[in-house]
Amino acid sequence: MSRRYVVLAPNAFAQSAKTAHGVIAYGNDPVVAVVDPSRAGKRVCDVVPHLSHCDAPIVASLRDALAFEPTALLIGTAPIGGALGDLRAGVLEAVAAGLDIVSGLHAMLAEDDEIAAAARERGVRLYDLRAVPATPVFSGAAYDIPVPILLTVGNDCNVGKMTVALELCAAAKRARRTWSFVPTGQTGIAIAGWGIAVDRTIADFAAGACERLVLEAASQRPDTIVVEGQGAINHPAYAPVTLALLYGCAPDALVLVCMPHRATINAYTTPTLPYRDLIALHESLLASVKPAKVVGVALNTRGLDDVAARREIARARDETGLPADDLLRFGADAFYAAIAGSLSKREARTA
Amino acid sequence: MSRRYVVLAPNAFAQSAKTAHGVIAYGNDPVVAVVDPSRAGKRVCDVVPHLSHCDAPIVASLRDALAFEPTALLIGTAPIGGALGDLRAGVLEAVAAGLDIVSGLHAMLAEDDEIAAAARERGVRLYDLRAVPATPVFSGAAYDIPVPILLTVGNDCNVGKMTVALELCAAAKRARRTWSFVPTGQTGIAIAGWGIAVDRTIADFAAGACERLVLEAASQRPDTIVVEGQGAINHPAYAPVTLALLYGCAPDALVLVCMPHRATINAYTTPTLPYRDLIALHESLLASVKPAKVVGVALNTRGLDDVAARREIARARDETGLPADDLLRFGADAFYAAIAGSLSKREARTA
Repeated sequence: MSRRYVVLAPNAFAQSAKTAHGVIAYGNDPVVAVVDPSRAGKRVCDVVPHLSHCDAPIVASLRDALAFEPTALLIGTAPIGGALGDLRAGVLEAVAAGLDIVSGLHAMLAEDDEIAAAARERGVRLYDLRAVPATPVFSGAAYDIPVPILLTVGNDCNVGKMTVALELCAAAKRARRTWSFVPTGQTGIAIAGWGIAVDRTIADFAAGACERLVLEAASQRPDTIVVEGQGAINHPAYAPVTLALLYGCAPDALVLVCMPHRATINAYTTPTLPYRDLIALHESLLASVKPAKVVGVALNTRGLDDVAARREIARARDETGLPADDLLRFGADAFYAAIAGSLSKREARTA
Repeated sequence: MSRRYVVLAPNAFAQSAKTAHGVIAYGNDPVVAVVDPSRAGKRVCDVVPHLSHCDAPIVASLRDALAFEPTALLIGTAPIGGALGDLRAGVLEAVAAGLDIVSGLHAMLAEDDEIAAAARERGVRLYDLRAVPATPVFSGAAYDIPVPILLTVGNDCNVGKMTVALELCAAAKRARRTWSFVPTGQTGIAIAGWGIAVDRTIADFAAGACERLVLEAASQRPDTIVVEGQGAINHPAYAPVTLALLYGCAPDALVLVCMPHRATINAYTTPTLPYRDLIALHESLLASVKPAKVVGVALNTRGLDDVAARREIARARDETGLPADDLLRFGADAFYAAIAGSLSKREARTA
C-alpha cells in the first residue's frame, strides 16, 4: 500500500529527525511535506544537504501540509526514551484530518486511550513500528543458515549502521547479487515494511527476536543477509540491544560503521572507542559464541571536507588493515567489492 | 505479610526448581510442603542436600499439601522461556483452594484470562514477580552513588550469583556492616520482597531499570550495595541482560561466580570461559564506560568432593591471583573479609 507522507518534526527536522531522514533517503513512499515551524518556507534539500534529491516543502503547520494531499503522518523524530510528549497535539490533529499515523516511538499509539479512540472514531489506522511480536528464546537455529550473515556495528548510535547496510544491499543489486536487508529498528521497518524493533523486545527474548529475523530473511534464499545494527557495544544505555544483535543474528562477518569525529557516546560522557578496541571487543565477545571478524570499516564523515574525509579513511585503513571508505560520499561499489570476496560461511555450529 | 508456601514443582523439585530452592534457603516465609509426585513421601532435605535445614514434606498432590495449611502457592520452577505450560492445572487448583499464587514465570498470571477470572471469583491474589514497572532510559545518575557497588557475574546461568550476593550480605551483617542486597530476578524478588526482574524489561530500558534499583538501594544508605547478577556475558540468549546489569548498575567491583566443572553454557554448546578470559571480557567492556575490576572468585563446587573442591579453589587463586573460595561449602566470612578491604568508591563520573 502506497502512502503519501507528511512528516511531523516540530523544531527538529534539520537536527534530529533520524526516522524522517531515513524514510526520505531510502523509503518507497514519497514525503510530500514536513511540518517544522522553525524551517517553514524552506525545502527538505535546503536544510539537510544529504537529502538533495528531495524538494518537499517544509511548512509551519499540519493545516498547511494538507494542501499537498498526504495520506499518512510519519512521526519524524526519535526522542530518547521514545515518549509522545508534545507531539500529541499534532497526532490528534492529523487523526482529525483523516490521516493514518505511522509512529516509531516507544509509546504505543494504539495503547493511548485518547489517540486510539480518536482513530477509531475517524476510521484511520495507527501503525506502531515498534510494536513487537512475542518471540521465543534464542535457539541456535540461526547457526544453520547456509548463507553468510553480515551485521553492521558502530562506535555510537545514529552514525549510519542502517545506511551502510542499505547501501551495501544496493551495491550488491548493481553487481547482480541479492543481499537482503534485515530491519531491526523503527526507521528500517518504515523503509522495508517488515522487521522487529529489537530495542523494544523483552531482554530475555531479544536475541530470539534477532534469530527470528535472520531466519525469516534466510527463507527468501538471498546470497547474503545484511542486518542493520543498533546502539554501540559501549553505549551505557543501549549496549544490551547491540549484544542481542551480535549473538542473536549469528553473524559471519561485521562491518564497523564509525563517525570518526564523534568523541563521546551521544548524550553521555562515555568516550567512543578507537577502531582497534572496537574490533577487539566485538571479536572477543563473539569468539566463544560464534566467531566472526570485522571485515571492513565504513566511515560517516559528514561535516568534514573531502580532504579531511580522505585523511580519516586512510587512517582507518592504516589502523585496522581493513578496507575503509565513506559509502555515501564516495559510493558503495568499491567497498562492496572489497568486502564481498571476504564473506564466507563459517563452519556450521549447532546449539 | 507472612505467607506459608506450598511449592509447585511437579517432577522437577530435585533438579530444576531454582526459585523454590532459593526461597527455602534464604526466604523469610516458610515452605510447608512441596508438590512433586516423583518424590512424594520424602522431605526437602532428603532430595536437595544443601537444603538440609528444611524438613518440609514432599507430597503427590496439592490436595495432600493442604493438610499443612499453606496460604500461598509458589511456582517453584523457572522453565526456559517462562511459559505456564502444564502448571496451569495446578495453579487453578490452588486458586480454587483459596491460595494466593506467587509466580516468577514470564507468562503473567494476571494477564491470563482463565486464571485472572478464577482468582477474582475466589478472592485470592496473583503475584507476578516478573511484572516490571516502566523505567526511564539509563541516565548516569548511578555514577553519583557514594557507596561502593558490587555486582556478581558468572560463567553461566544458575551457578550461584544470587546465592553469593546473599551470603556476602549475611557475612557483612555478622561483621556489623550493612551490605544491601539488590534483587534483579524472580527468585531474589521472592526472597527480598522488592526488585525488578531485569530479564523481563524492554531492552532499551534494561540498563535504566538496573540504575533505578541501585538508586533505590542507595537511598537506604548501606555501607555497600550488592547486586545479584544474571546470565553470563557469553550466554547466547541472556547476555543482553548480563550487559544491562554491567553498565546499568555502575558497579565499582565485580565478584566472579563460577561452577568450575561446567563446560558449556546450559542448554547450548557454547563453551564456558576460563577465569582469565571472563575477567578480561568484563573488565574491557567496563573500561570505557565505568572502570571496575573483578575482586574475587566465588566457586560453586557442588557435586565435587572436598579434595576436588579445594583443588578447584587453589586453581582459581593461581589463575587469577585473587581471593577464591566456595562460600557455601567453607563459609562466607573469610571471602568477605578478603574482598571487603578492596572495595572503594572509584572516582565519581557523571553522564
